[in-house]
Amino acid sequence: MTFEVTILGCSSASPSYHRHPSAQVLNIFERFFLIDCGEGTQMQMERYKVKSQRINRIFISHLHGDHYLGLMGLLSTMHLQGRTKEMSIYGPKELKEIINIQLKYSQTILRFPIIYHDTNPDKRDVIFEDEQLSIETIILNHRIPCTGFLFKEKKKPRKLIKEMVEKYAIPIEFLHKLKDGEDYHQGNKIIKNEELTVAGNPARSYAYCSDTLYDERILESITGVNLLYHESTFMNDLIGRANETFHTTSKQAGIIAKKANAKKLLIGHFSARYKDLNPLLLEAQEEFLETRLSVEGETFRVE
Amino acid sequence: MTFEVTILGCSSASPSYHRHPSAQVLNIFERFFLIDCGEGTQMQMERYKVKSQRINRIFISHLHGDHYLGLMGLLSTMHLQGRTKEMSIYGPKELKEIINIQLKYSQTILRFPIIYHDTNPDKRDVIFEDEQLSIETIILNHRIPCTGFLFKEKKKPRKLIKEMVEKYAIPIEFLHKLKDGEDYHQGNKIIKNEELTVAGNPARSYAYCSDTLYDERILESITGVNLLYHESTFMNDLIGRANETFHTTSKQAGIIAKKANAKKLLIGHFSARYKDLNPLLLEAQEEFLETRLSVEGETFRVE
Repeated sequence: MTFEVTILGCSSASPSYHRHPSAQVLNIFERFFLIDCGEGTQMQMERYKVKSQRINRIFISHLHGDHYLGLMGLLSTMHLQGRTKEMSIYGPKELKEIINIQLKYSQTILRFPIIYHDTNPDKRDVIFEDEQLSIETIILNHRIPCTGFLFKEKKKPRKLIKEMVEKYAIPIEFLHKLKDGEDYHQGNKIIKNEELTVAGNPARSYAYCSDTLYDERILESITGVNLLYHESTFMNDLIGRANETFHTTSKQAGIIAKKANAKKLLIGHFSARYKDLNPLLLEAQEEFLETRLSVEGETFRVE
Repeated sequence: MTFEVTILGCSSASPSYHRHPSAQVLNIFERFFLIDCGEGTQMQMERYKVKSQRINRIFISHLHGDHYLGLMGLLSTMHLQGRTKEMSIYGPKELKEIINIQLKYSQTILRFPIIYHDTNPDKRDVIFEDEQLSIETIILNHRIPCTGFLFKEKKKPRKLIKEMVEKYAIPIEFLHKLKDGEDYHQGNKIIKNEELTVAGNPARSYAYCSDTLYDERILESITGVNLLYHESTFMNDLIGRANETFHTTSKQAGIIAKKANAKKLLIGHFSARYKDLNPLLLEAQEEFLETRLSVEGETFRVE
């Protein structure tokens, strides 16, 4: 089952070297989620053949322009292209006011409804849940209210061992309990679940953490995550600047991935001062080998 | 003296085929004016090596997103790059509210002052004037309040014919009057100005007309203009759609250039439906031969 993220923008606030501000599309089982929507996101979608009509949920981390200024244009284009399907937007409560004032002055009534889901920057919340996945906020530590997002597959059911199920003649109506891990009682005898099933595929997860100071409190959200996207605005020689601006260095991103016991780290949100990003990669890899650089247009699988 | 416009964006509301929404930079005597600022303008400036720090006046025609959504990001980047020099913005009065609400929620206090100059969509106004040039609004006819902009060099002084000035021994203190076209009185004799001077270089002008219905009332603003930028959203087979949406067809743009006795026509604001723009060019050229297509990154001289 597909679980992958495509980077549309990986620059910090001032775009440079043809990098664009933050935006990425997460594809989980062919459901598409847009995470942040910096200026130019709709053009990046066109460039990388992301079908905007397939996006029904948009997640905005915070109200610095490089994370949301592409939203108004994207919504307008969806409107002009005839979208009628409702759009859910998860983000700071003030976002609605920013969108509405612009719709008002352009005298636009969108053909599709927007459902706003206000995020609470001070509390971990499950903001979406269905049978396949859950989405939680991550409390970040930035200059203005800011949340990350954790996308998790639901725990997979255990797989039946067909021969054993037949051997003990387990009734069909009990099979879903077996998949949930229950033991089977046959008269006085207990048949342990492990004898009848094996573990299902592990549930995968993706965490988006941008923008934030290095802050170990995020570990409670991201420990064990399969793919951690973490901002890495500066190299560690500029840790003073990182602290001042509530950002993270590459070294710190590597440390947090290691402490979180993440499977893989993807760094992004690069400062305009870096033309060559390899030194940032190497610095993070010294702490956490399984680090990758965000590259616009590239897709990273969550495994 | 330089007088030229560089196209940064020439698409209408939905960007497509890698065309960007409206934005252009006018260079008059090495003074740089930004006209409209669609989403992605700051990235287009980077691409085409336009130095944003040199821009001190920005002109916004109206509050449809494809004409101003790049403004907030551009101002933010100027701020982050340390700009302190004041910026003048000419546009609809509601623009200030849109900018201010976004500054408020991003908790940003710009390092440079913005001077807002509200445009009046119902009245031709001189909105800027100095010794070199004047800038006037043009009343356009769009779905929401919208103005074009007319940039005019000041009338050039007449040039002295050195030998004649010496022959009649015209006093130095009278020479500026000669340049202004006055005759010279020598005793009872009148020496006609034409004997002493020749016409100065003609004053050049550039008119920006986007977005608008075909409307001959603009002729009072643009007659005799050297370079007319006029929107040309559709081909004439979609004239019904053009009328509905308050836009112009290529044929109509050609007709208005002809009626205005313009020297040259530059068409732009192309609908996303046209991959190949040559048919729009040919249609306009049937009415007005001196037509050019807007091409992003290309510079057109006002001659």
